[in-house]
Amino acid sequence: MIKAIVNIGQLVTLAGPARPRVGAELHEVGIRENAALLLEHGRIAAVGSSDEIRSKVPLHEVLDAQGRCVTPGFVDAHTHLVFAGNRADEYEKRIAGATYQEIAAAGGGILRTVRLTREASEDELLASTRRHRDWMLRGGTTTIEAKSGYGLDHDTELKMLRVIARLNEEGPAHLIPTLLSAHTVPPEFIDRRAEYIRWVAEDLIPKVAAAGLARYCDAFCDDHAFTVDETRVVLESAKRHGLGLRIHAEQFRPGTGAALAAELGAATADHLETVMDETLAQLRQAGVQPVLLPGSVFALSRTQYPPARKMVEAGLAIVLATDFNPGSSPVPSMPFMLSLACLQMRLTPAEALTAATINAAHTLGLGAEIGSLEKGKRADFLIHEFTDYRELAYFIAAPARPRVFIGGAEVAT
Amino acid sequence: MIKAIVNIGQLVTLAGPARPRVGAELHEVGIRENAALLLEHGRIAAVGSSDEIRSKVPLHEVLDAQGRCVTPGFVDAHTHLVFAGNRADEYEKRIAGATYQEIAAAGGGILRTVRLTREASEDELLASTRRHRDWMLRGGTTTIEAKSGYGLDHDTELKMLRVIARLNEEGPAHLIPTLLSAHTVPPEFIDRRAEYIRWVAEDLIPKVAAAGLARYCDAFCDDHAFTVDETRVVLESAKRHGLGLRIHAEQFRPGTGAALAAELGAATADHLETVMDETLAQLRQAGVQPVLLPGSVFALSRTQYPPARKMVEAGLAIVLATDFNPGSSPVPSMPFMLSLACLQMRLTPAEALTAATINAAHTLGLGAEIGSLEKGKRADFLIHEFTDYRELAYFIAAPARPRVFIGGAEVAT
Ligand SMILES: [Zn+2]
Ligand SMILES: [Zn+2]
Repeated sequence: MIKAIVNIGQLVTLAGPARPRVGAELHEVGIRENAALLLEHGRIAAVGSSDEIRSKVPLHEVLDAQGRCVTPGFVDAHTHLVFAGNRADEYEKRIAGATYQEIAAAGGGILRTVRLTREASEDELLASTRRHRDWMLRGGTTTIEAKSGYGLDHDTELKMLRVIARLNEEGPAHLIPTLLSAHTVPPEFIDRRAEYIRWVAEDLIPKVAAAGLARYCDAFCDDHAFTVDETRVVLESAKRHGLGLRIHAEQFRPGTGAALAAELGAATADHLETVMDETLAQLRQAGVQPVLLPGSVFALSRTQYPPARKMVEAGLAIVLATDFNPGSSPVPSMPFMLSLACLQMRLTPAEALTAATINAAHTLGLGAEIGSLEKGKRADFLIHEFTDYRELAYFIAAPARPRVFIGGAEVAT
Repeated sequence: MIKAIVNIGQLVTLAGPARPRVGAELHEVGIRENAALLLEHGRIAAVGSSDEIRSKVPLHEVLDAQGRCVTPGFVDAHTHLVFAGNRADEYEKRIAGATYQEIAAAGGGILRTVRLTREASEDELLASTRRHRDWMLRGGTTTIEAKSGYGLDHDTELKMLRVIARLNEEGPAHLIPTLLSAHTVPPEFIDRRAEYIRWVAEDLIPKVAAAGLARYCDAFCDDHAFTVDETRVVLESAKRHGLGLRIHAEQFRPGTGAALAAELGAATADHLETVMDETLAQLRQAGVQPVLLPGSVFALSRTQYPPARKMVEAGLAIVLATDFNPGSSPVPSMPFMLSLACLQMRLTPAEALTAATINAAHTLGLGAEIGSLEKGKRADFLIHEFTDYRELAYFIAAPARPRVFIGGAEVAT
């Protein structure tokens, strides 16, 4: 059993105030050179110099990091990890010029994933989700928020949440479940939207909350999904039943959900590609963290990334996540998100790393547990192939293989 | 020893005419379902059905591909694989808004890599190059064109070429060496450009050609590098000495090298982001293959990708490569190039795959040896995690792990 990691050339601790980081704090990632970690019961017992820590542990329990860079594991705070099948054929059609509407008319799009996910057995869905999870682990993601939302009926939504629970129990990655039944209107309710919303708010949410199957509730507020009023009905119910709130907001048009996130005190407002400047102050006052999802902009061949620099200037505690899903963001890699954040949103590698670790942890209520390498925190960390954390963003899509530790134990990826 | 791969759900053979593919041929990737490969002496002895091939080989020499997709290994026809150090710090400065000129004035840019590469011992340089090569192998690249050009003096240029030769001998990836001493004007010659060009053309090229240290000669034709006339002097000498020709052309401005590539019958004209429509016909008539390098557009946060669709329409045998280098394209992954080709240049996954395999092989004079899975060709192939080759482009930056075979032997990546 490894009790100490020594000879860490660059230890990026992300140590700092016990709250989400804003402004210049985003850039201060707490670097220590020639450092070491002392591990105990899966937690960080001390951060110190190599000499200091080495003296406390027998030689055979010491791992030499050979001068490499160590960071916290990535926390991916927005994923649609659970789905059956994929949509590589639609990707090809889209490239050839087919519109989303044409693809949907041909039986494709999100409702196709809903159909496949409904058809899959729970074990099949678990296997497919595990495969997605394994990719994430290989990229260094140690905690994953995972949403339902490809079921849109009682049995399948619960099946998805059970898959998340089972994969979480199975370990080693930690999964945080979010109910996203308000993802799109299911085909059975296409002419009875209000009824569907009522069912989610009055029937499903209480049941899921009582069963402890979700910690958060999310809704897709968009012209093609749910109105602000419909979203409010869902999220108010979720709030009453003790769930935290997240919102897919302002992806394609301003005025679709960010103000509501502020009004309801949501943990996050996600996407925000089209958010207007005046809305940013509302988010800050309400303590809502924006979750930036550049993977979906990239994968849709769009060019309007969320205004990350304005968000930093507005004092917002930005978060970076993959939005991994089979339609708009089939991108499981957090290191690639760092690259996109730098190249397309002009975040520094340090700001991007903060957004991908400690700030993401805070949106999941885990800011005191993970996201930085400080005494008492869970020992979720990565020994990179690199000696400088900036190389994570710089070597784009590199098939690098970090050594991944969760709860102090190395994970075979 | 494996003698047969059976139960290949989707075998993408790239079988076709024994010449670079153009037009609709680019999209015809020669798919066989439930197929198998018979291997012999590191080559493909037959392509057939699973039943057929299985009957020819004892059970313990058969590998079951479990329904997965098999493609040829990627051929990366444009890389600057050999360099010391990296420029992650400059990447950060560039993101923060520093111009290329400011970075160069602060001792950065290409001349910094030249300095580090000159300082590195041959063994150090070999180790650093091997690391880059290993990333490429993990991504499924089995043949790599590799350029000199960070030495710009006699000893370092030869050191770079020897590193390529040593790594090629060491295996398992095959490396094709290209002399790129006309990459930029070295500091010692800053006021004596003509003298440098003369030295490359009259002294270095004959020597390198005689020693068999390069198979191709390349030059960077650009306002910040060499004029068309200077480039002509270098490449004419290379041609006289039996080297094939490649040109960095029209990256930032039209009229920088594409016509010269046609005039001299170069194998490739690389970059071509700004190439004009009328030049495409010249390239076609001369049989010059355009090498598309979307990684450098992406990594420079630029938006002008080369006009790939126009090239296809013009009947050009397009090629896709990484341009892996520490400045403008620190991107070692061919699967990510497939994604960029689809999302940013509107190539279909099939067209992109053709450009990344058989068409690339033809630019290196290896069209009869690698790049497709046909009888008699070297058994360089990948067993993917996927069942459909389109997933390679669709799952963007996924940490997938293809099983890599070179000359019929599996490579430990
Ligand atoms: Zn989403
Ligand atoms: Zn190049």
